[in-house]
Amino acid sequence: MKLNCDMGESFGAWQMGHDQAVMPWIDMANIACGFHASDPNVMAQTVSWALSHQVEIGAHPGYDDKPGFGRRSIPHAMTEITQLVAYQAGALDAICQLQGGHIRYIKPHGALYNDMMSREDIFEATVKAVAGLNQRRHIALKLMIQAQTDNDLFRQIAEYYRVGLLYEAFADRAYDESGLLVPRTQPGAVYQDVEQIKEQVINLAEGQVTTIQGNKLNLAADTVCVHGDNEHSILTIEALHKVLHP
Amino acid sequence: MKLNCDMGESFGAWQMGHDQAVMPWIDMANIACGFHASDPNVMAQTVSWALSHQVEIGAHPGYDDKPGFGRRSIPHAMTEITQLVAYQAGALDAICQLQGGHIRYIKPHGALYNDMMSREDIFEATVKAVAGLNQRRHIALKLMIQAQTDNDLFRQIAEYYRVGLLYEAFADRAYDESGLLVPRTQPGAVYQDVEQIKEQVINLAEGQVTTIQGNKLNLAADTVCVHGDNEHSILTIEALHKVLHP
Amino acid sequence: MKLNCDMGESFGAWQMGHDQAVMPWIDMANIACGFHASDPNVMAQTVSWALSHQVEIGAHPGYDDKPGFGRRSIPHAMTEITQLVAYQAGALDAICQLQGGHIRYIKPHGALYNDMMSREDIFEATVKAVAGLNQRRHIALKLMIQAQTDNDLFRQIAEYYRVGLLYEAFADRAYDESGLLVPRTQPGAVYQDVEQIKEQVINLAEGQVTTIQGNKLNLAADTVCVHGDNEHSILTIEALHKVLHP
Amino acid sequence: MKLNCDMGESFGAWQMGHDQAVMPWIDMANIACGFHASDPNVMAQTVSWALSHQVEIGAHPGYDDKPGFGRRSIPHAMTEITQLVAYQAGALDAICQLQGGHIRYIKPHGALYNDMMSREDIFEATVKAVAGLNQRRHIALKLMIQAQTDNDLFRQIAEYYRVGLLYEAFADRAYDESGLLVPRTQPGAVYQDVEQIKEQVINLAEGQVTTIQGNKLNLAADTVCVHGDNEHSILTIEALHKVLHP
Repeated sequence: MKLNCDMGESFGAWQMGHDQAVMPWIDMANIACGFHASDPNVMAQTVSWALSHQVEIGAHPGYDDKPGFGRRSIPHAMTEITQLVAYQAGALDAICQLQGGHIRYIKPHGALYNDMMSREDIFEATVKAVAGLNQRRHIALKLMIQAQTDNDLFRQIAEYYRVGLLYEAFADRAYDESGLLVPRTQPGAVYQDVEQIKEQVINLAEGQVTTIQGNKLNLAADTVCVHGDNEHSILTIEALHKVLHP
Repeated sequence: MKLNCDMGESFGAWQMGHDQAVMPWIDMANIACGFHASDPNVMAQTVSWALSHQVEIGAHPGYDDKPGFGRRSIPHAMTEITQLVAYQAGALDAICQLQGGHIRYIKPHGALYNDMMSREDIFEATVKAVAGLNQRRHIALKLMIQAQTDNDLFRQIAEYYRVGLLYEAFADRAYDESGLLVPRTQPGAVYQDVEQIKEQVINLAEGQVTTIQGNKLNLAADTVCVHGDNEHSILTIEALHKVLHP
Repeated sequence: MKLNCDMGESFGAWQMGHDQAVMPWIDMANIACGFHASDPNVMAQTVSWALSHQVEIGAHPGYDDKPGFGRRSIPHAMTEITQLVAYQAGALDAICQLQGGHIRYIKPHGALYNDMMSREDIFEATVKAVAGLNQRRHIALKLMIQAQTDNDLFRQIAEYYRVGLLYEAFADRAYDESGLLVPRTQPGAVYQDVEQIKEQVINLAEGQVTTIQGNKLNLAADTVCVHGDNEHSILTIEALHKVLHP
Repeated sequence: MKLNCDMGESFGAWQMGHDQAVMPWIDMANIACGFHASDPNVMAQTVSWALSHQVEIGAHPGYDDKPGFGRRSIPHAMTEITQLVAYQAGALDAICQLQGGHIRYIKPHGALYNDMMSREDIFEATVKAVAGLNQRRHIALKLMIQAQTDNDLFRQIAEYYRVGLLYEAFADRAYDESGLLVPRTQPGAVYQDVEQIKEQVINLAEGQVTTIQGNKLNLAADTVCVHGDNEHSILTIEALHKVLHP
């Protein structure tokens, strides 16, 4: 069970996150690519930290929307989705190449991630970008999506395009009986307590999650998403790292 | 002697140039990468036209300056120059990969091109980007720069980083006795007459250029830059194509 | 019956429209304000042309979306809508002030216009911006919206905030039996023929419109929107001008 | 002697500064206008805090350069400078009007400020913007510039355009024998010690400054610029407030 974290979301003079402090404790860094956040320098710096800690690098493309931080769903033609994912992944991969690295996967950001999970056409447009980029890569890129109790539709589309999927669960988010995230607006939707978060990650490592109503659901996940927004959350990530790599 | 042309400089709803009409007559397309002009869709469309005419594709990166169309010299640290060139080249290469293509060279745009020609540190920062991207490419990218009577300094730096150079001359610009372009502000600096432009290209194909004062200079060029701004200039490009490929 | 036209939609090196050629024939210029199109220089140039032809100036604010030219509906909180309309109107008014002019009305652009017409909350947020700006103006700004057969809801909200409305109809668009525009995707939705456009404007000047099914509807409009995209359309505008100002 | 502080330099999801904490202790808020930083929402929020503390509001326009935070000198035609200053001031003034407020002065930001102080043509272009906006204002806007031992040239130009100047000194910066700021790269250029900063402000309130070499210079300033980057600096501002308003 790997820990992944969104990274490289500073922009010019604006800092966001504590990437350098988080990097030692995670396995996969989803690095923003300059559309919803980041710029070439922030990307190069974040890649450098990831490489020095042997952290796997993924592209974290978003809608072209810095004012909304990629959190607003912006209408696009499907071919546009494919091109904007490829553009951003290629840009980050080039920044990696200058330092002898590579991207290994793509995880869309924010509204693009949500749209991909809720709209089959946007999911397919994203898969097409990954498939197109994989045509000549020695090691194929994978696509990271949200683990659900039933991933069949996603898997079928991805298999059609021969794209491998990575399933992610969330360390600090409550799940409902359908295996979906409890909306942030509901009480208890976000876990703050380290012990509770640890327990969820241990459960996920065993293929299960305890719902907000206390039931156990099967949920197969390759990786758990963590956040490094503040000192408390960084300590939580360190604790999770030690649980998973005792 | 190949014809190269700046392309893909539309942006969203704003059209610029006549790329589709020019594409049949050129050999190399310098395609803008989204910083001074273009967007992922414009790039994909331009790449598609280039591939359908077997036109070689080069990245045409510029400063991140759509309001100034990349024509304003914007101060950067040298590492920033390297990263922004790599970012844009990687992005265009990814767009090419979706269509089974590749970029083959990089030609900076506008103020970045001028700064590269006039400042050794910016030239070196650009060469470093090309060298970094070449580390794992089967076919190395080259860097296109302006042909001068003495290219020694540029060649020495490029050789140090094992980067190949392509030298370009200009079809419709008058040259002075030093082999430099006569500034646009001077009368006679830009040729309009098709016959005069043809003659300059024929001379360049033989390694020479006739200066504005009527003298012959040696000027070794791999390619000639043409512009497709209007119907007249497209006819000129077609005429040059027929001269070079009789 | 006044002719209004969207203007100032160039951006940096990218030209759009033929503002200088259109200006002599129109009464009201809706000038883009830098969010979906334009920049301070384009705005200043367009204002200068408008003032020299005694054309009334309106702010034409849009979503902050140059890549989509303001044609994509971008989610916003209602307070954001109010602020972004005020921001853009204030910016254009300042550009006018440098030349001794003023804006007189606000007409939202593209997706913001459509959202305002279809969502009461966005209409109200827009009205609030106008009302806020009017607090200290000697001559109150008005808000231009689409004329419909029943404008009651819009009028009630506008009256509550003491904002005057200007109703616009479209010279070259077919209307359906409900007094709404026939969607562009349908055949016959856009009129090309000058005589047909003239007839529609003459009808509108008398408070009526002939629907696509040939019936007459009452439609009260203060102004007719025209477009100056090409030479044909400029000649059409000139013809309309001569019909209205014989 | 008034305290002024740069404010409203957050952007979308990116926070910068501690505006709410600083606002009670300052007299003048220089609010960014969306070009180098800020957006309509950030501006509205910052204006609201300023109005609730009766802090005078000034526009803080910069170059259109969020990636460089307005710290890079970007080449402009002089008419462009005038328009971009007017655009930003008008936009902020409109945001103020929605809340019943007004801007009272303009203080350029970063590279635009430095360029204005070092280039007479850019100073004049900025003065023209202020003069143009003042044509119909009941209370004229002033322009804030850096206090120097000899302000004659600036004053003459400003008087020619009938624009009033506000002179600012810096609370935490060392001055050299010419009354200019010691460059940040030199040791001792920036004061950290609260007592030293207090002493400088007390001196400035008496029209003097002690140079880095220990000499007293006459320096007439209307206001002192302070920074609210961190908790230490906020405490310093509070201390200065109490010195100036005992």
